[in-house]
Formats: sequence, structure tokens, C-alpha cells
Amino acid sequence: MKQDNILGERKIIEIIQNNLDKMPKMPIPFGDDVSAYNLTNQTLAILKTDMLVGKTDVPKAMSLWQAARKAVVMNISDFAAKGVKPLALMVSLGLARGLSKKDIQEIGKGLNAGAREYGTYIIGGDTGEASDLIINISVFGTAKKADIILRSGAKPGDIVAVTGTFGKTAAGLKILSENLKAPENIRKAFIESVLMPHARLKEGLALSQTKAVSAAIDSSDGLAWSLHELAKASHTGFLINKLPTANEAETFAKTNKLDPAELTLYGGEEYELIITIKPELWQKAQEATAKLGTKLLPIGKATKQKHILLRTNTETLIIQPRGYEHFKTNTI
Amino acid sequence: MKQDNILGERKIIEIIQNNLDKMPKMPIPFGDDVSAYNLTNQTLAILKTDMLVGKTDVPKAMSLWQAARKAVVMNISDFAAKGVKPLALMVSLGLARGLSKKDIQEIGKGLNAGAREYGTYIIGGDTGEASDLIINISVFGTAKKADIILRSGAKPGDIVAVTGTFGKTAAGLKILSENLKAPENIRKAFIESVLMPHARLKEGLALSQTKAVSAAIDSSDGLAWSLHELAKASHTGFLINKLPTANEAETFAKTNKLDPAELTLYGGEEYELIITIKPELWQKAQEATAKLGTKLLPIGKATKQKHILLRTNTETLIIQPRGYEHFKTNTI
Repeated sequence: MKQDNILGERKIIEIIQNNLDKMPKMPIPFGDDVSAYNLTNQTLAILKTDMLVGKTDVPKAMSLWQAARKAVVMNISDFAAKGVKPLALMVSLGLARGLSKKDIQEIGKGLNAGAREYGTYIIGGDTGEASDLIINISVFGTAKKADIILRSGAKPGDIVAVTGTFGKTAAGLKILSENLKAPENIRKAFIESVLMPHARLKEGLALSQTKAVSAAIDSSDGLAWSLHELAKASHTGFLINKLPTANEAETFAKTNKLDPAELTLYGGEEYELIITIKPELWQKAQEATAKLGTKLLPIGKATKQKHILLRTNTETLIIQPRGYEHFKTNTI
Repeated sequence: MKQDNILGERKIIEIIQNNLDKMPKMPIPFGDDVSAYNLTNQTLAILKTDMLVGKTDVPKAMSLWQAARKAVVMNISDFAAKGVKPLALMVSLGLARGLSKKDIQEIGKGLNAGAREYGTYIIGGDTGEASDLIINISVFGTAKKADIILRSGAKPGDIVAVTGTFGKTAAGLKILSENLKAPENIRKAFIESVLMPHARLKEGLALSQTKAVSAAIDSSDGLAWSLHELAKASHTGFLINKLPTANEAETFAKTNKLDPAELTLYGGEEYELIITIKPELWQKAQEATAKLGTKLLPIGKATKQKHILLRTNTETLIIQPRGYEHFKTNTI
């Protein structure tokens, strides 16, 4: 039985999936950022559900308002990656006994803030008792079949790009959990990136209009892990030649004798989009996000060879399929 | 702060709702069995989400397979009450560490069994770590606006009816938790009703076709509580003249010196439909469920006067707004 204790999140998902009958003609396969149902020949209902759990997803410094808002943001981020507008949200709350009226108000206000930030509403839900804070959000939207961006469309030669820099959240989590030091203004920005994540919804919607994006995923499981998932679904590899490390993360790494590449690749809880772009449409994609004030950062290319590699000035390294994973972390 | 500890589930829902901006033109108000989004002028997307929590919703005698199946059934039951076919399910799992491969397989198989029993599929979801077993199911469907049965449509004079007898589940829970006695065959049936609930989906779909139903709710919060909710939404009262107590529950109550009315009214976790029917279409409604082998049981009438009353041979009693409620139960 000891062996069973190290079942990781991905293995668990695999076991569950293997025991489910597959809906015939499922328009989006298991394992993409969202799921879909054929509404008409051209239109899909898009569904997403994701659960925030107090113990694993809510650092101590995070308020109930922030936790509730984050539960919304992490779900919206998956819609952003697929270029789908969220139309309505449902919420299931599991609450420990003894929360005050003010606590519950905070949760309500946080849910609402998250929904309104992305132009949508909570339209219903359910509340029950649980041992820990549980906030499950379900998102509903619709999309034209032709418009949806899957994980599986990357082709060798496509440009790999991200919608922002990486490393700040990992640094923020280290400051919060390991009490590492940083200059006050940087410290604030790092912690803010943990407590107040933002989903790249506008960018995702604009990119989907360009038809330039061949595949996309959100980076919530970390840059490295998400690259591996994208490559696996697309049957490609990636050659990364420029890590999108945030300047502040670089400085922080230096001061604390950490590897900036480690902070960038293996952090997680960062809600950027990782996309592959048809080279001939690169400019169009870049312009689409530039209009929103977001610089698209090219970080490498999709390759026929199925390795996920990082080329630096001096060497070529393998990017490991590591990232934040529930269950397995700390278990062995 | 002591006062805050007795916030009940309904008060919590009220506080949350009061802090949410309302979507304009929301086709189904907060608090009905399901929620909806206007897809077109005539069509609604129907959404439901409900969470099963190990601690409060899973008796010790219930296997993981049964718990997973129940999580599906309790969601389908709400679609049944509204006469809406479930088209696709999403699942969020929160799992404690240390579950074995066999445990996870059981959960997968139970989810699948529940979905397939009602002609639908699990099409996606998410897994994370939690302190307790958490199974959140979201259901998606579509409905014509004109077809949906709300809680709010009952009119004075409408016949109140249920799709089955009550009291077996309450008896089963008493056997499981308080070790009460019953003859073996009855005991088995009671426990079965707890461990293997069934949603009245076929009945709900057939009834919705008759246009005979003016209002409906599922009885998962107990007959008494659900009658109160239905009355409140419809701005009516009810005069109940025949309690739908199961014969076996009657016998069990006698043997154990319990009040059969108590078992019938205040049990909960029973997934029957409670509906109000336009008197002129009573026969049509009755025939529709009879074709499915289900006898529609008339139990009273909707009244203009807003009390929920029970008339017996000798007296008229008030049916209290009591039922199973998370948080508050056992707290005072």
C-alpha cells in the first residue's frame, strides 16, 4: 500500500479518465484547458471547472476576499488560453464552521470582484459544510468550432511566445513561505503577483481573432510543465532560446543565490498564456496584444524532434517535466 | 462572535447573494434548483453545480463508488425537477492523500455509473488535494424558455403531488447512525435508499412535456423544507391532507416509537420531485408518469393563504420550515 501513497495528481487524473466512458464525437479531448459539448454543427458549449482548496491553494497571507477572487481568476485563465469569453459562472462553496458574517461577505465580494473584472457574473451555486475552505468555480461560454485554440495544434517551426515575464510569483511564494528577503518595492510586487493574479483574457480573445495561434495553454502549472503538456498534445518538441525571466526575479535570484531559470521554469501559479504562432502571422499576433499594452515575448520554436530544450549561450539543457503537482509534493 | 457560529447554510447563501451583482435579465432567479443563461431568445443554457463533502454527505456505510455516483445523482435530481435533460457533466475532485489506485478507480467508476444511468457523460474536470473527500459536479443542459418549470409558478388551487413515498431514507439514516432495528428485508430497502439514491429524471422530462406542472422542486432538503421553498417562491401556501409516508416507514416508526410524520416531513436526502399541477391537467400528468411505472401521489393543494398546513382526521397542524441544514445542525 505504501506505493499507493505516491499517486500524483496526473496519475489520479489518468486513472479517473480510464474509467470514464467517452462521449461520442467529443469536440475537445480530455486534458485540454476546457471541455466542450456540440451545441450545433458550428457552435460549442465550453465548460470549465476548477477547485480552490484552502490548504493547498491559499497562502496564509491571502485574505478570504483574495482567495475567492483567485478561484474565479484561475478558471477564467483557462478560458483565456482557449480564446473563449466566459458568459456565466457557478460557484460551490465548502465552508468550515465558525466563519463570521464578515468572512462570508468577504467571500461574496471576492467572487463578485473576480467575475466583474472579466465582464461576467456569478449566476448561481451551492453552499455546504467542509473541513477546509473549498471554492469550486464552473465557467460556461460558447465558441465557434473553428475559433477554438486547442493544445494540440502546434507545428514544427511555429514561434513559441508568452504574454508576460515569469518568476515573480515563485519569488513571492518563497518570500511568503521561506521568509526570503527582497527590497521593499520588489517584495511588494512579488507578493502582489501571488495574492492578486490576473488572467490574460483580453489577450486570449484578441489573439484568437488573429487566427495566428496554433496552440495554447495557460501557465498555471508552471512554464516547464505547461510547455511539456503543449508539446505532448501537439506531438512536437520545443527549443527555447530565451527564458522570459522578469528583471526583478533575476535580481532576487542573484541576492538570494537562487537559479533564475528555476524560478522561471518551475514556479507555477502564474497565469500567463503560452502560445505557438504561425511564423507568417507573428506580426499580426504581436500587434493584437500590443494594442492592449501587452508585449508578446517570443521564447523559442516548435520542433519536429520531441524534446523540450533550453539553449543558452554556452549549452543546451533539457527542460524537465516538473512543476507544482498536488499530492506528490512533499510526499516522498 | 459567538453569534456568528450559528450562521446556517441558508443565511450564508443569503449573504453571498447580497454581495453579488445580478446579471441583467437573469432568466432564472437565484435560489431555484438550477441557473440559466440566455443563449438565444428562445433557448437557455441550464447550469447546476453541487458539492458532495465526505464529512457531511457520505455515511460510513457508503462506498467510494456509491459516494461518486451519489454526487452525480444529487445534481441530476435538480435537472429532473426542472424537466431538463442533462447533456454533459464536469467533475472537480478534492482527494485526501493516501488513497489507493483501487480507491481512485472506484471513484471513476462511480462517477461514470451515475452519468451513464442518466444518459450523459463526464466530459472533463479537475483534481486536487483536500483534507476530505470533495466531489463537485457541474451539469450542463439546454432548454426552451417556455418549457422550464420554476419554483415560482404554483397557483392557489393547484394540486400538490410527489413522485414517490417518503420516510425510507430517514429511517435508513437512523439505522446507520443510531443503530435502530428493523426486519431484515425492510432494513435492506432503507439502507439501499440511502446508499443508492435515484433521480426522477424520466418523470421530470415526461412531466415537463405535459405542460401540466406549474412549479417544481426536488425534495433533497426534505419534504417540509422543500414545500416551504416552493410556497415562498410561488407566494402561495399549501394545505397537505395526505402525507406520502412509505408503508415500511410507517411500520418502522411504530416498532421504534417514532413519529411517522417526522420521518416523512423532516428527513431529507430523498430525491423525489414535489410538483404543483394545474387541476384540469391532473390526469394528463398522472398518465405521463404512469407510463414510466411511477404513480403520482396527490398530497394536497396550493392555497392563497400563505401557511404550510397538514390536515389530519382530527386536527390541522403547521408544517415547520425544518429540514437538514449544514452548519446549523448540531451547533446549538
